[in-house]
Amino acid sequence: MTRRTGRRPGRPGTREAILDAARTAFAERGFDAASIRSIAGAAEVDPALVHHYFGSKDQLFLAAMNFPIDPGQVVPKALAGDRDAVGERLVRTFLGVWDSPAGSAGVALMRSAVSNEWTARLLREFVTTQVLRRVLENLDVDPAELPLRGSLVATQMIGLAMMRHVVRLEPVASADLETLVAAIGPTIQRYLTGPLPS
Amino acid sequence: MTRRTGRRPGRPGTREAILDAARTAFAERGFDAASIRSIAGAAEVDPALVHHYFGSKDQLFLAAMNFPIDPGQVVPKALAGDRDAVGERLVRTFLGVWDSPAGSAGVALMRSAVSNEWTARLLREFVTTQVLRRVLENLDVDPAELPLRGSLVATQMIGLAMMRHVVRLEPVASADLETLVAAIGPTIQRYLTGPLPS
Repeated sequence: MTRRTGRRPGRPGTREAILDAARTAFAERGFDAASIRSIAGAAEVDPALVHHYFGSKDQLFLAAMNFPIDPGQVVPKALAGDRDAVGERLVRTFLGVWDSPAGSAGVALMRSAVSNEWTARLLREFVTTQVLRRVLENLDVDPAELPLRGSLVATQMIGLAMMRHVVRLEPVASADLETLVAAIGPTIQRYLTGPLPS
Repeated sequence: MTRRTGRRPGRPGTREAILDAARTAFAERGFDAASIRSIAGAAEVDPALVHHYFGSKDQLFLAAMNFPIDPGQVVPKALAGDRDAVGERLVRTFLGVWDSPAGSAGVALMRSAVSNEWTARLLREFVTTQVLRRVLENLDVDPAELPLRGSLVATQMIGLAMMRHVVRLEPVASADLETLVAAIGPTIQRYLTGPLPS
């Protein structure tokens, strides 16, 4: 069996409808339980069209996940400016993405990553290569320290997203963005540029 | 229908076998997918006996979750000592529980909390009433600040557990315990006793 993965240009409306349906389905039901058939149904298209545009469900998930959080666009903006406030800017940017409608893709990713080893691997790859690498290569820190710094940042950021958007622990769940930036920014700053344990 | 929830004294081996099987099942498959029948099968007992000892699957889950992390025992130990190092002691205690065989119950809880609203509520209740309340009521901080301090601690602790034990992001996944205590202890300390954003 051959699988066509090319995209038809000129039909962005259909692609967006499929991606919207996919994000909702993945957020509400997780990767494993959301079917191409149900996503196609929600988007009011034939399942074959979903396969035609995106290939596999994995590829659809990647497309749904990458769209709202394009690290290539978002990270450089957060990095620009005073190095001593990069922690606060990264928290503000991160929460801005999660608090937007696009955040449902993040919830989908979290749900899938804890129940599906493939998605956990995907999350690790995404966090490491698309986000942390971009952050750290612009910060002028000892390259040998990058992995530990990056994974410490990930512990705080993922925990923040999990408590605010998945578990919904108050008052973090409904705290205003700047309160969280002020409280958590210094943590990210220390993990990125502060002293590490020897 | 009446449901008997009394426990037969004198058969601790059977109860432990059921709890062990439950923890494994919940960790590997999550709360929703793990069945009483499969747990009973793994423990080599009749499913009716599981219902007899623990009542519902929910109650079995609570028992499986509470056993390894008895906050009434663990938290006071972590709190005893110098107030300025309570952050490090809490991280050390938290990681000690997660790194032990009992940590599989924590993975089970995390898996269920992200896919099941009931378990998310359970996790919130557990974290808030069993852990954070015990920590914060012994720290002599402004009671009005307790909820924010507590939920900030939860963001870092849950994110740490998630990255180390579920997503397994390196090097946090296999870092030695004292490296993480030194790196993350100051974060917890600041959330508990440092200045908060106004």
